Amino acid sequence: MAAGASAPLAAQVASKTPTPPPGYTIADMGGLKHFIPPKPERIAMLIYPGMTALDLIGPQQTFGYTQGCKVDLVWKTLDPIVTDTGVTITPGATLRDVPDPDLIFVPGGGKGTIALMTDSAVIDFLGEKGKSARFITSVCSGSLVLGAAGLLRGYRATSHWAVRDVLPMLGAQLAPGRVVEDRNRITAGGVTAGIDFGLYLTAKLRGEDYARAVQLMLEYDPRPPFQSGTPGQAHADTRDFATRLYGPLLKSAQASAEAARAKWVKG
Amino acid sequence: MAAGASAPLAAQVASKTPTPPPGYTIADMGGLKHFIPPKPERIAMLIYPGMTALDLIGPQQTFGYTQGCKVDLVWKTLDPIVTDTGVTITPGATLRDVPDPDLIFVPGGGKGTIALMTDSAVIDFLGEKGKSARFITSVCSGSLVLGAAGLLRGYRATSHWAVRDVLPMLGAQLAPGRVVEDRNRITAGGVTAGIDFGLYLTAKLRGEDYARAVQLMLEYDPRPPFQSGTPGQAHADTRDFATRLYGPLLKSAQASAEAARAKWVKG
Repeated sequence: MAAGASAPLAAQVASKTPTPPPGYTIADMGGLKHFIPPKPERIAMLIYPGMTALDLIGPQQTFGYTQGCKVDLVWKTLDPIVTDTGVTITPGATLRDVPDPDLIFVPGGGKGTIALMTDSAVIDFLGEKGKSARFITSVCSGSLVLGAAGLLRGYRATSHWAVRDVLPMLGAQLAPGRVVEDRNRITAGGVTAGIDFGLYLTAKLRGEDYARAVQLMLEYDPRPPFQSGTPGQAHADTRDFATRLYGPLLKSAQASAEAARAKWVKG
Repeated sequence: MAAGASAPLAAQVASKTPTPPPGYTIADMGGLKHFIPPKPERIAMLIYPGMTALDLIGPQQTFGYTQGCKVDLVWKTLDPIVTDTGVTITPGATLRDVPDPDLIFVPGGGKGTIALMTDSAVIDFLGEKGKSARFITSVCSGSLVLGAAGLLRGYRATSHWAVRDVLPMLGAQLAPGRVVEDRNRITAGGVTAGIDFGLYLTAKLRGEDYARAVQLMLEYDPRPPFQSGTPGQAHADTRDFATRLYGPLLKSAQASAEAARAKWVKG
């Protein structure tokens, strides 16, 4: 990874004299400065049928290596859900019984994600918990669900490249990027952006020194075999193919965004 | 991601005239050339208590987007396992009932991985299925389990940086790298290397055009917030801290490697 490419993100979190969030203290851990929270942060990560497992597991692995926070995987019931590539994951809490989270996270996916945009139990949960959460976050098309809940109105936000043009329909200002922060909304790009997002959050919650240690634990020195990670990088044929592939999903997302907006007007 | 950094891996798979594996044919998909297997490849991905979820999900997501292969998550029983950061995943098949796999995959982890190195049910499974599998693969410390099964004797291989020095004790030739291929053994570095590994395998099984499309679907244009993904990149304090953190695990891995070797001599 070239230093230049990572500079913009690093500049947002790096500081010679680390400043912890309000209420946090600074401690020294073998020469590394890190922040200690006044009490463990509660992190509620939504999981649901048809979600993309990697959207979840990138940041979940990072939070799991961040000591002093408590992560809950939440869904409507405690029944296992199956991801878009067939991984069966069991929730640890339901929307009703999860304690008020400090951080809400929504991963993306395909049809399953679009379905959540008009799922009143999920939309109500996000709207309610979103009032008090310190951070409202997503990876990939998860931002469409936040948007459908009205949580991105007036905020800069991003999403998976194939559906991010839907965000303005939900009142957000599209800001294509790997990790986009606007006040307490932090949204990330498609799928693998979740790892960058996870480390970014770890830096916010525990300081840069701590996040650097987690990056080393994850041996995160990516070497993509090709230059094909964004529509701009990809060959035209590749981009056209993938755009066609995602066409029906984009249409569903647009229709669901219209339905969500109609509900705001009515509500 | 700088083009230079990704060139070595790309050079291993890229070709102007793609050559499919024996028995595969070439088809055109919207201008993209891709390989069609004579029958769906069976991919057996071992899962187990204490594994690192991201080691598994990086390649699992990639294989899941690779049409025409069949992925099984396998363990001794069909009971759910819990990963090192608390994700509960349900296996789809047991070691006894999974069909002979074309590809065997072992993810890494901490104590749970070391335990597998002397787990005769797992070692016997790998030894037996390894005789006929086309590819024998791992991410992270999963290579220690392959090594304990004797599958890396005389092969170049890699592992998570913190434990990779154990590989020579298992008869392997340590080749530090993100993805290391030697004949039909393909091993990858720590945790996040699984995404590079997954795309590498997709390129082998379906051709470079297909892998490029999957990379775009995964929006894999990584932007690590820091330069701290390898011991060489990390600050000395960070490296020392992480090395101390992994010290006990390294010792256990060395002891288990001794035990595995002793069994080969006796056996």
